[in-house]
Amino acid sequence: MTVALLSIGTELTRGEIVNTNASWLAAELTAAGFTVGVADTIPDELDRITATIHRLAAAHRLVIATGGLGPTTDDLTAAAAARATGVELVRDESTLLAIRRRIEGRGKPLMPGHEKQADVPAGSEILSNTVGTAPGFAIHLGETTVFFLPGVPREMKHMFTEQVLPRIRPSAPNNTFQVRLRTYGLGESALDQRLEGVEAAFPGVTLGYRVQTPEVDVKVYARAATQSMAHDLALRATAEVKARLGDCVYGEGDETFASIVGRALRTRGFRLAVAESCTDGLIAHLLTEQPATDFFVGSAVTYANSAKSRMLGVSEDTLRGHGAVSAEVAAEMAAGAKRLCECDIALAVTGIPASGNGSGDKPVGLCYWAVAYPGGTIIRERVFPGDHDEIQMAAAYAALDLVRRVASGTLETAEPEVFASGPAAR
Amino acid sequence: MTVALLSIGTELTRGEIVNTNASWLAAELTAAGFTVGVADTIPDELDRITATIHRLAAAHRLVIATGGLGPTTDDLTAAAAARATGVELVRDESTLLAIRRRIEGRGKPLMPGHEKQADVPAGSEILSNTVGTAPGFAIHLGETTVFFLPGVPREMKHMFTEQVLPRIRPSAPNNTFQVRLRTYGLGESALDQRLEGVEAAFPGVTLGYRVQTPEVDVKVYARAATQSMAHDLALRATAEVKARLGDCVYGEGDETFASIVGRALRTRGFRLAVAESCTDGLIAHLLTEQPATDFFVGSAVTYANSAKSRMLGVSEDTLRGHGAVSAEVAAEMAAGAKRLCECDIALAVTGIPASGNGSGDKPVGLCYWAVAYPGGTIIRERVFPGDHDEIQMAAAYAALDLVRRVASGTLETAEPEVFASGPAAR
Repeated sequence: MTVALLSIGTELTRGEIVNTNASWLAAELTAAGFTVGVADTIPDELDRITATIHRLAAAHRLVIATGGLGPTTDDLTAAAAARATGVELVRDESTLLAIRRRIEGRGKPLMPGHEKQADVPAGSEILSNTVGTAPGFAIHLGETTVFFLPGVPREMKHMFTEQVLPRIRPSAPNNTFQVRLRTYGLGESALDQRLEGVEAAFPGVTLGYRVQTPEVDVKVYARAATQSMAHDLALRATAEVKARLGDCVYGEGDETFASIVGRALRTRGFRLAVAESCTDGLIAHLLTEQPATDFFVGSAVTYANSAKSRMLGVSEDTLRGHGAVSAEVAAEMAAGAKRLCECDIALAVTGIPASGNGSGDKPVGLCYWAVAYPGGTIIRERVFPGDHDEIQMAAAYAALDLVRRVASGTLETAEPEVFASGPAAR
Repeated sequence: MTVALLSIGTELTRGEIVNTNASWLAAELTAAGFTVGVADTIPDELDRITATIHRLAAAHRLVIATGGLGPTTDDLTAAAAARATGVELVRDESTLLAIRRRIEGRGKPLMPGHEKQADVPAGSEILSNTVGTAPGFAIHLGETTVFFLPGVPREMKHMFTEQVLPRIRPSAPNNTFQVRLRTYGLGESALDQRLEGVEAAFPGVTLGYRVQTPEVDVKVYARAATQSMAHDLALRATAEVKARLGDCVYGEGDETFASIVGRALRTRGFRLAVAESCTDGLIAHLLTEQPATDFFVGSAVTYANSAKSRMLGVSEDTLRGHGAVSAEVAAEMAAGAKRLCECDIALAVTGIPASGNGSGDKPVGLCYWAVAYPGGTIIRERVFPGDHDEIQMAAAYAALDLVRRVASGTLETAEPEVFASGPAAR
């Protein structure tokens, strides 16, 4: 049984935003054992929405639509769903009450647009929204169920996970299993080359890559006669994949790279201070995406040279003599952060992430990072390719990786291949 | 005339990658004056590709398909295109020669898969690939032209820009114009209510909203008989929209909120230091997305209390007596950052963004922010709704807005309605 996805929104067909909802839903449905047969995107136009609902419902037993349930006049999905079912829109009083409570709980007045969000096709099954105002709903067209969810990603994800998935899971073929490996240190082509032949060796297994520079997720997707056979097949293939990729695989599932760094620090009882220049607070952000109170103290984001001197005690002679982007400044920044915060370990990064600020001997992308710890100070340098954001992210990961290696005592093992081509480490 | 987009690839329908090709093409086509009526995504399946080509070609004069032109056995798009046109695949010798040169130029042997990429539907118009191996091609079905491009984004973009756009541009209606207004301080419903009747007063104008909490973009999209009439219509409607929204409209086009804050600081010749606790470096990140050397000095991201004391000189008595999330600590953080960095103005934020850390009198979402400047210290407090990331973003914007008001001397004008309902300002 294939599932159809329908994304509704003129902001999508005008290319103003990327359709992350469709890919998220497709991944979730795939992981739950369904096969997505089509994912259509259409603008907020009443006739087109109605016609597309009919067309998709005729060819699929399950349709999941997102978007167009907002409070404004260009939100037409509920009206189109009513038309597709041949019913009127009716105001659902319990939904209206929930909307009123949410809006007034935020100290705001209820607007006509909010009230409109309580209008759903007569006879539809309401899906309450626990994190926003617009409810979702489900309609039935012949044997097909069509779910309508809000377009706001957070609301859509909550509603899908809490209310749609439990309803549809029993009808999943349930003959697939997927493992998501998180990797750092190899590019997509290099990973693909190392994994050549795995699919042939494990019939029923498909490998997929998802690049989120500088990370790449490797998905091991197995399909078999039953789910337990698929599970077993996926685990056997995963073991082979892990053996081939070595320590590029840093985690599984939803683990983040920063959480692995945090675990290494926690294990050693180390508390970390950070001094950031070119990464502009990105390292602090990555470290604090999950609770970090037990290993992270703070970060001095020293954008101007004066801040490097005044906040971290970097000497003005060093700044003048070597420039802000230098191994010497990185080392003094790390020492300053360690002293300032009375920490066991400190990380510092300085570099040139912006275009237009490079020069002959200091090109754009040049970064230095240093770790000061009880065993001494380690400094690395590298010219990272890419645009401003890519350089920042690459530098943040490289720097965090060095912290991980210091904290976990694996400094002597080979560093990620991604750096192998850079200038020699000092 | 509407255009249809067709994205072909099982990696898309499994959600392994996000479909950035469709949004890029939609934006390019919209900018060129076309209207995208539908964007469909389907897996690499011969029958489904063939049927979808037929369906889209029947309803649109222009179809642009991407993906499925690679060297592997699961790339079936050329075969489906031939079937849809009722012709055979034929090997194009000049394309084969170009592929051979490219592959052998990289020191690799030509594989059967590479040769397969020279197979195109008989009679199709070939679009050469200047940055990869797979050529594109165009077929005609009745009055409809269907372009087939590679799925690799870089190759697709080159081929679209160099070969597709010049061919289709003459047929663009060129009768639309869009203005993008950036707003902060009102929610989507409140904006919509203020703009009620604008569409009716300016026939041909559509208003669209794009929410990126806490910002909302308002798009004024005009369609008229000619582009200059659409341009004129859009500007007249935009003037009305701006008059109704007042200073919620902070900018246009690609301007960012932080860049407006930067402009206000620059105008006054103020240099800003920041002290962040609950925002974890987000304010530094927002301020440095565009060059900020002339107004931004740095940010002390003080995650632990010890960092607030050691980096910013917040007294331990204040931390003990009032708690880290308090007006008193926010004021001392701002004073400390101002003194530490010898700045004209300093901003500090402290709050509770994470779930699980609230208590009776200090709920999750409670934030204090303070601005210290030559005229004194201003402190605000507010409980922001939402999850961890939403609270962080709301606090960062509210804090930056206060800096903007202090720097631009508009402190006395009404603050954004979004705060009006919060606890009284101190």
